[in-house]
Amino acid sequence: MNGAEALIETLQGCGVDVCFANPGTSEMQLVAAIDRQQGMRAVLGLFEGVVTGAADGYGRMADKPAITLLHLGPGLANGLANLHNARKAGSPIINLVGDHATYHLQFDAPLTTDAAGVARPMSDWTRVSRSNRDLAQAGAEAFSVAMGYPGKVATVIAPADHAWTDGAAPVASRTVPAAPHSPRGAISSAANGLKAVNGQKCLFLGGRALRADALHLAGRIAAATGCRLVAETFVARHQRGVGRVSVEKLPYFGEQAEAFLKDFDTIVLCGADAPVSFFAYPGKPSWLSPSGATIINLASKNEDVQAALAELADLLNAPSNPANLQRSCITPAKPGKLDGASLGAIIGELMPENAIVSDEGATQSANVMNMSAGAKPHDWLQLTGGAIGQGLPLAVGAAVACPNRKVIALQADGSGMYTLQALWTMARENLDITTIVLNNGSYAILNIELLRVGVENPGPKALSMLDLKNPSLTWTQISEGMGVPAVRATTTEDFRSALIAALSQKGPRLIEAILE
Amino acid sequence: MNGAEALIETLQGCGVDVCFANPGTSEMQLVAAIDRQQGMRAVLGLFEGVVTGAADGYGRMADKPAITLLHLGPGLANGLANLHNARKAGSPIINLVGDHATYHLQFDAPLTTDAAGVARPMSDWTRVSRSNRDLAQAGAEAFSVAMGYPGKVATVIAPADHAWTDGAAPVASRTVPAAPHSPRGAISSAANGLKAVNGQKCLFLGGRALRADALHLAGRIAAATGCRLVAETFVARHQRGVGRVSVEKLPYFGEQAEAFLKDFDTIVLCGADAPVSFFAYPGKPSWLSPSGATIINLASKNEDVQAALAELADLLNAPSNPANLQRSCITPAKPGKLDGASLGAIIGELMPENAIVSDEGATQSANVMNMSAGAKPHDWLQLTGGAIGQGLPLAVGAAVACPNRKVIALQADGSGMYTLQALWTMARENLDITTIVLNNGSYAILNIELLRVGVENPGPKALSMLDLKNPSLTWTQISEGMGVPAVRATTTEDFRSALIAALSQKGPRLIEAILE
Repeated sequence: MNGAEALIETLQGCGVDVCFANPGTSEMQLVAAIDRQQGMRAVLGLFEGVVTGAADGYGRMADKPAITLLHLGPGLANGLANLHNARKAGSPIINLVGDHATYHLQFDAPLTTDAAGVARPMSDWTRVSRSNRDLAQAGAEAFSVAMGYPGKVATVIAPADHAWTDGAAPVASRTVPAAPHSPRGAISSAANGLKAVNGQKCLFLGGRALRADALHLAGRIAAATGCRLVAETFVARHQRGVGRVSVEKLPYFGEQAEAFLKDFDTIVLCGADAPVSFFAYPGKPSWLSPSGATIINLASKNEDVQAALAELADLLNAPSNPANLQRSCITPAKPGKLDGASLGAIIGELMPENAIVSDEGATQSANVMNMSAGAKPHDWLQLTGGAIGQGLPLAVGAAVACPNRKVIALQADGSGMYTLQALWTMARENLDITTIVLNNGSYAILNIELLRVGVENPGPKALSMLDLKNPSLTWTQISEGMGVPAVRATTTEDFRSALIAALSQKGPRLIEAILE
Repeated sequence: MNGAEALIETLQGCGVDVCFANPGTSEMQLVAAIDRQQGMRAVLGLFEGVVTGAADGYGRMADKPAITLLHLGPGLANGLANLHNARKAGSPIINLVGDHATYHLQFDAPLTTDAAGVARPMSDWTRVSRSNRDLAQAGAEAFSVAMGYPGKVATVIAPADHAWTDGAAPVASRTVPAAPHSPRGAISSAANGLKAVNGQKCLFLGGRALRADALHLAGRIAAATGCRLVAETFVARHQRGVGRVSVEKLPYFGEQAEAFLKDFDTIVLCGADAPVSFFAYPGKPSWLSPSGATIINLASKNEDVQAALAELADLLNAPSNPANLQRSCITPAKPGKLDGASLGAIIGELMPENAIVSDEGATQSANVMNMSAGAKPHDWLQLTGGAIGQGLPLAVGAAVACPNRKVIALQADGSGMYTLQALWTMARENLDITTIVLNNGSYAILNIELLRVGVENPGPKALSMLDLKNPSLTWTQISEGMGVPAVRATTTEDFRSALIAALSQKGPRLIEAILE
């Protein structure tokens, strides 16, 4: 058995059974090993950003890692941006990065790079295989690291000679470390803070605190204490809709977020860092909480927030019925031209139970999210690291992880262009994804940001750098060119018909929604 | 004047007048500064790999750097693969990478990354600005570094607060360092080697040795000594065609290259490293020259090879007329189904004088290059670093650098998908580029490599990871969706008509050539 076979068998022994791949010559032994491994699914992406973004979507939905198979330093580099997002989301991922045979590196052939150096800035853990026998060991360690709470990005550099040399054997899976508990005293501090007589209080919820079970506990705490429930702005996986505990959402723009937070005297962090401005702006604060507020850390992003919420609910003798249970709420869409609100109303109305929304809707997200709060129960996934080009790949990974759930990709046009190759994978794997491209012909957010950073009277050259017209993109053609049937909608009525049609069939569809 | 304005004015003072851009919020002051700077052209790419690949194409043709404008660590990461290629090509590039304001980094906002860490593996030089006043200084240094022979990738990390803070001023351009000369004795060693009575000899030519003037000198040396002229496999910029000194080309596959080189007793390296195998293969050598051959280093990649060739020609009293002058040679294309040879024959016949070919033709490159050797004089640019997804962006940059020359992008389908967003920039800027997509529905090279690395009897899962069918890509639709008119050609006759039509007009066109 060669090193590649030992590695792949080891990983399958750990429970890994999906590989998102974009291999090259130096990964051919890994390709062959995956080929031979029964039950290991291989999903090809035509660009590495698709591969890593899909692994993120898979990890968020499966709570276990998929493998990515990447071609040396440059292939890994193409996937880094979505690894950055995955890391911020706390997604488990194992990257297998092929490299030149160890003895070949000295010759500085054209593809020679410092693969480990490329990996480190966007990996939680990077390990270079030391031999054909060590490769499986590296894989077993990577699995254990990736499963570290809430999920980590683990990268293994696999030299080609380690992969192809015989004499290796699979190794046993290692213990997955338990999720760390909050520090001693955190639970009672939070209870005392929430029981204080004066002031407005909130739980600030992020990461795993936005799963349904954790939210149920948060709702019970709210029922016990009257505190408000606030979610971080960009969420890895938020389980929402009818019957779930609803939360308020911290706005994106710093001044709005600051205004939202200004009345809170006590902020209890639950799986989230204290809120900060997404970018810095001249003369505006980075820290968004009121200066006099008490900030209590119930559980950090890397601590078991559900366990902490459960202990807190116990300590507070919280009632069994949570506050803020979401009721069904469907708003009729305004007829005529499409806008974010009508889009959101229709999506909220039509979304099937257990749908998964991959939301890279940029300036339209908040509208659609508001309008769909009372939809059937669903999971909502967002861009966690700000590196655009995540939405379509994330949908691919979610659909692979959950083949019996409908995935809706809500995709802004500008960011969609980064990793549009994901459409081809949707077609190839016949993934049950309805992609809704929000075409406003602009990096709309940047036109807003240009003013917010203090640029006055921008000229035509500046505005042209934020503009996607001239020529306008025709997403229906792009989509059909990659094998995904597509239609265009310019009115509420068009869009509603198109969405009904797309949701009624299994398989990929694209709707190009032309927005005002 | 703020730091951004001082930086952009400094760079324009150095002679930089093109910026390939994909900015975000943290680069808005740089956008505004470019907006205000008369004579600084801004070219938007819808993905960073387009931006950096375009800067490479520009650098190869203009012999001076363009700016890239990139959005923090993740935006830079998306551009790394083409920076790797640029670095291997010896292209001058200045990357301007925005970053969070310095005081904002401590808050670990979602886009916080180690931007310098991301830059280093693919940059020759990386510098983080230290203040608003230092930003222009960093830019001046970057220009001087980028202009280092033959061309370097210089990266400046520009924190947003340095860009927006007033009190800065432009700085004077710095001296561009002279190209280093070959070490003492290299010229006479080479002369002695070439004058030896026995054995086969060659000049092994790479980098700047493939420019017309250097090749003329090489041809004179061949006339004086009878040595053969051999070009490295992947060339940054090769000036060829009628009236230029022709060269043989080292084959890509290691065993072919080894067989090609086996008769040489003396190999004189001229702007190239000694030939090595592109990848390692089990049981095959990495080093390709015969073990008994004498290898003489006339000039390394980083030494002035044209000066060295001139001195060598002088020392040899080489005649003024070079050997191997290319004569006009047009081969009729075989009628019927298209293949690489007929494609090459037609391109060779129709290519206008001074055309620039951006060749990412993968398995079809050698065919097309052979068949077009006797075409009108032209420049041929190739993928130098093996990181696929370079061809279309490279064409964009070449067309921006040389608006009066026709650019032909010869693009394999698999690699074309990596950075297909370049088509939109071609349409937007009305660049005079004819893109020929070579559609064979496969990563054809990988099917060959799979066998070459010793994988026997690959199963359907392995083969599916190298396959681009199911669904097949329809490049005409993808292209028109991004605004580039496109036609499909399946026969020699179709292709010839399509190419005549495309070349007769200014502006972007795409021909999807369906290959057997």
